[in-house]
Amino acid sequence: MPTATATLSVSFAPSKKPHLSFCPFGATSITLTNFTSPPIRRPMTTSAVSIEKETVISERPHTFLRQTDGEDNGSIRSRFQSMILEMQESVCGALEALDGAGKFKEDAWTTPGGGGGISRVLQDGAVFEKAGVNISVVYGVMPPEAYRAAKASAADQKPGPVPFFAAGIGSVLHPKNPFAPTLHFNYRYFETDAPKDTPGAPRQWWFGGGTDLTPAYIFEEDVKHFHSVQKRACDKFDPSFYPRFKKWCDDYFFIKHRGKRRGLGGIFFDDLNDYDQEMLLSFATECADSVVPAYIPILEKRKDTPFNESQKAWQQLRSGRYVEFNLVYDRGTTFGLKTGGRIESILVSLPLTARWEYDHKPEEGSEEWKLLDACMNPKDWI
Amino acid sequence: MPTATATLSVSFAPSKKPHLSFCPFGATSITLTNFTSPPIRRPMTTSAVSIEKETVISERPHTFLRQTDGEDNGSIRSRFQSMILEMQESVCGALEALDGAGKFKEDAWTTPGGGGGISRVLQDGAVFEKAGVNISVVYGVMPPEAYRAAKASAADQKPGPVPFFAAGIGSVLHPKNPFAPTLHFNYRYFETDAPKDTPGAPRQWWFGGGTDLTPAYIFEEDVKHFHSVQKRACDKFDPSFYPRFKKWCDDYFFIKHRGKRRGLGGIFFDDLNDYDQEMLLSFATECADSVVPAYIPILEKRKDTPFNESQKAWQQLRSGRYVEFNLVYDRGTTFGLKTGGRIESILVSLPLTARWEYDHKPEEGSEEWKLLDACMNPKDWI
Repeated sequence: MPTATATLSVSFAPSKKPHLSFCPFGATSITLTNFTSPPIRRPMTTSAVSIEKETVISERPHTFLRQTDGEDNGSIRSRFQSMILEMQESVCGALEALDGAGKFKEDAWTTPGGGGGISRVLQDGAVFEKAGVNISVVYGVMPPEAYRAAKASAADQKPGPVPFFAAGIGSVLHPKNPFAPTLHFNYRYFETDAPKDTPGAPRQWWFGGGTDLTPAYIFEEDVKHFHSVQKRACDKFDPSFYPRFKKWCDDYFFIKHRGKRRGLGGIFFDDLNDYDQEMLLSFATECADSVVPAYIPILEKRKDTPFNESQKAWQQLRSGRYVEFNLVYDRGTTFGLKTGGRIESILVSLPLTARWEYDHKPEEGSEEWKLLDACMNPKDWI
Repeated sequence: MPTATATLSVSFAPSKKPHLSFCPFGATSITLTNFTSPPIRRPMTTSAVSIEKETVISERPHTFLRQTDGEDNGSIRSRFQSMILEMQESVCGALEALDGAGKFKEDAWTTPGGGGGISRVLQDGAVFEKAGVNISVVYGVMPPEAYRAAKASAADQKPGPVPFFAAGIGSVLHPKNPFAPTLHFNYRYFETDAPKDTPGAPRQWWFGGGTDLTPAYIFEEDVKHFHSVQKRACDKFDPSFYPRFKKWCDDYFFIKHRGKRRGLGGIFFDDLNDYDQEMLLSFATECADSVVPAYIPILEKRKDTPFNESQKAWQQLRSGRYVEFNLVYDRGTTFGLKTGGRIESILVSLPLTARWEYDHKPEEGSEEWKLLDACMNPKDWI
């Protein structure tokens, strides 16, 4: 029977906060986040922990939660799982309806002690060359040092290993038409148990995620529409969210060696726990609910636009940059590759086709040049 | 005036040998090599040293050597530079003759204090979708700790920064026809000066390089021919070379997250200094001289073989794996991306077109399956 694996590694150092980099495409990692410099990845730490091997299953289960977590006990983890399961259904439904020809293929897996995932991929459809919508639920254990580092007040105690729970949905949608933009979104929730031998030590939890747009050609009305939907979702919760998460997105999806962002951004946030937990669950749900209204109207308008070979080649060049970002910089992807996550789930984010031309420079003022300019100098779209 | 940069970073730790990872595509790095585990990359070390910014020039110079090194003083560095300059000429000549239509485009750059490089790229020819043949010569300075770590006997002295010299040729050739294999080769030479304030401390030097073949389809006679030429070059110097460097190649070009090599290998070696310097210069020259006789006869046979769309798609899938290796694992590439080498020179190694299909599994026993099998289980071809 084929098996798939999910792997977790925890890195830590004094005075640094551990950071869970969760990839719903099949890998989860905790990396150090130092708030004055980029994250340092140390996948070779001796503290790496592997989660149980997972087994491919023929039917999707009703839940990936452990029995002790209940199925519908009102906990955040239970409600977050429900949210991502429903979201996978509704997004895939909307995409299949739009595509008209392609159907999602589903691969599901589980582990005996709870946890698992469902990958759904639509490939070579009428509208999409590749569309992946994955969810996963992970139970793991992090070394006590990571927990202590996370919570300075517990540093003088000596807790045992800290169980944690992580769940998320992640998706990348690559259309065929060069005028139809690529979309990425992912939303995730993380929670630790209290360390077993340190009763009273606090639980940790946080939310992360984002939705961002990567067109090969700019239609200003499309980008405005996309960002407006993100802003509307944010504004329902806090007026500071959209500007803050818009900038975070511009900063995160940066291809350093090109000096350009991979696309035109959207929103991105991580480690979010300085608001009410119920509020943040609602916020993540609102963001996920906004994916279809933000994206589908753009695709409806652009999916059948006539294009020529050179416009297709430009789209594939841009897809090459997408590959560069994901393989070189994306935390979940790079970590997953190094630690043995389910490779096909992780790399479903890559486009069906990509292209690299030597020293390609669009003519100044051309549509292609305008895109590069916007990737170099992020704009306020609304 | 446009500028290009070359960057050098040195990492070190007690009891570890510094390792110069030189990428003639435009980047040079020194990383730690620990002989019991894979190299640890620490590009964010505070010991990173940047080399002078380089300037694009309109004509290729006669030499990149500093005047003090002379142009033809019989030194190894001078003779190695002559070798790679001639090799670039002869390989590009042979490739243009084979292609019949495409011509190499040349970009050259230099720095005021000596050092520089020449990139030559043939794109969208009759036979090659992309062929890059680059040389570069680098003068840099490494922190004294790296030198001390390299030479334990000097550890109680306190030398100043250690000037070094590195030169190399690197090439990746991607043909259009799916039955014509991709070729990679690179040969490089590294030398330190004695530390300025520690007279009598020894110079360090070493050679590295290799030539390897990456077909999408196996023609056993082609692979046998290729490996035979490598073995013949090796056997002229030491009967242990071919088996040792063949295994090194199989080990190095390994895509860990796929559990498969990127191709069918060849030879690879690094840090080679435990033989006579003259002998190793001759050996590197012999290896470089063997590129054309190893590769061109295969291309002559395969470049016009009829193929269908599905065979082309398979070649592009394999090119996707090539991209994965280069962006995720190749030392020179990953380091160059992180430290600001000349990106277009570094990434000229990527194919013009690549492809990623979700969960692609060739039928057992098919030609495509046979290739995967050989990438998983390296064979003794001769």
